[in-house]
Amino acid sequence: MHMKNYLHTVHYYETDKMSITHHSNYIRWMEEARVDFLEQIGWGFEKLEAAGISSPVLAVTCNYKHATTFADRVEIRAYVKDFSGVRLTIGYEMRKAGCEEVVCSGTSEHCFLSAETGRPIRLQKDFPEFYDALLGQSH
Amino acid sequence: MHMKNYLHTVHYYETDKMSITHHSNYIRWMEEARVDFLEQIGWGFEKLEAAGISSPVLAVTCNYKHATTFADRVEIRAYVKDFSGVRLTIGYEMRKAGCEEVVCSGTSEHCFLSAETGRPIRLQKDFPEFYDALLGQSH
Amino acid sequence: MHMKNYLHTVHYYETDKMSITHHSNYIRWMEEARVDFLEQIGWGFEKLEAAGISSPVLAVTCNYKHATTFADRVEIRAYVKDFSGVRLTIGYEMRKAGCEEVVCSGTSEHCFLSAETGRPIRLQKDFPEFYDALLGQSH
Amino acid sequence: MHMKNYLHTVHYYETDKMSITHHSNYIRWMEEARVDFLEQIGWGFEKLEAAGISSPVLAVTCNYKHATTFADRVEIRAYVKDFSGVRLTIGYEMRKAGCEEVVCSGTSEHCFLSAETGRPIRLQKDFPEFYDALLGQSH
Repeated sequence: MHMKNYLHTVHYYETDKMSITHHSNYIRWMEEARVDFLEQIGWGFEKLEAAGISSPVLAVTCNYKHATTFADRVEIRAYVKDFSGVRLTIGYEMRKAGCEEVVCSGTSEHCFLSAETGRPIRLQKDFPEFYDALLGQSH
Repeated sequence: MHMKNYLHTVHYYETDKMSITHHSNYIRWMEEARVDFLEQIGWGFEKLEAAGISSPVLAVTCNYKHATTFADRVEIRAYVKDFSGVRLTIGYEMRKAGCEEVVCSGTSEHCFLSAETGRPIRLQKDFPEFYDALLGQSH
Repeated sequence: MHMKNYLHTVHYYETDKMSITHHSNYIRWMEEARVDFLEQIGWGFEKLEAAGISSPVLAVTCNYKHATTFADRVEIRAYVKDFSGVRLTIGYEMRKAGCEEVVCSGTSEHCFLSAETGRPIRLQKDFPEFYDALLGQSH
Repeated sequence: MHMKNYLHTVHYYETDKMSITHHSNYIRWMEEARVDFLEQIGWGFEKLEAAGISSPVLAVTCNYKHATTFADRVEIRAYVKDFSGVRLTIGYEMRKAGCEEVVCSGTSEHCFLSAETGRPIRLQKDFPEFYDALLGQSH
């Protein structure tokens, strides 16, 4: 399955007085790209919600390599970096559109909980199609 | 009843590439000052929530007179500008701490709904103490 | 000249604990739509910057009619509501994509200053093409 | 030198539709706590700016252990986790006021550049007092 990169154009309100994108916004763009990624593999937030699956963020990391600024078009590649069936780590690579150089890379770690009970869900058993979709994206 | 001004110190992430506070943040500070104002008159958000009162924002206005920037200490006076029993308009005056000059003034307009049914609440009848507290702040 | 509406898809981080879009974000979307509008009439921020024109926000108003929430696709029509040559008011109408109903309407008021001196610019005299482009959008 | 914790009260606009603080905000609170920390050791942002020192964020990590929500008072302990003279890692521990339990822990990594030339600064040689202040906070 070929995944499309997510595109975010930097807004004026995302810059700071250094004239560059404030570093906190990349964490938000990771969420935007993650939402798009899950949609692409057929498990968008609406479907997850309807299935009673909650997927909280356990941790994030972000490495800032080069600045971006207002009006820059940032392409974000989201990918399954690690998936144990219980924990999922999504990786992110951000580049200015048309450029090779990575401006920012990051990760977010997630578990899967029942929205109703708050207890961990065994994806392989309870949602084998979602499990397979994520596994199919692991390399 | 003497009301204390609310103090907000401008965060770095609230500035933009003009090196000043991005104008959208003043709308957020108005909310901060409003939360504090309601707390001071004895009707904080927790109490409103417990009472089943929801108070959505119907409209805002904001007039930017002078810029502020990182580390500025902004004092916000919130006051009841208009209160009909059904609709409430809160006014805001923002000054740099210790200065006379208003840097920004604004308003927010609210109604009162039952959190359960979504229907308008008659404050005077259903919550006379809250009604009186707001009326007592009207001039 | 036919103007395209600007499209903003509501991000998860733009929602609040009422499960709807936090009202402050509409002010930011107005900026996004304004940037796009100026780009469409041939006077994008880069060109304005290169021309030494600064266009601060003097005031905003925003009327919230219906809530939006995560994943909603919001179409924003920006238009010249008032233009005196010295002051510009841009109006905004927001609808969920494919719907008639306006969920939010707003305005932003601007003046034009020399980025170098901070003094008001006479658009008609100093930037007649920009003046004409704005006038051409007034109805 | 005894360092005071930094206090952040969670704003309504910082919550999301899960009814908890959106995870991106903790990155911003780390900045708030860092600004306060540097102020406390006598090297606030104004002084750094006047000295021509720029200190960009190279990386952040954040581990979310327990949720917080609107009106929670979050105490943040910032401390020097690692300081080589060239690179500085600040650590953060966040607790609800009066509680033992850490709700969130994080780090931010920084270098020091000349604001004028963009080149790395040797703190020990060029700003020995700043170097000593940071070293004095290392354990």
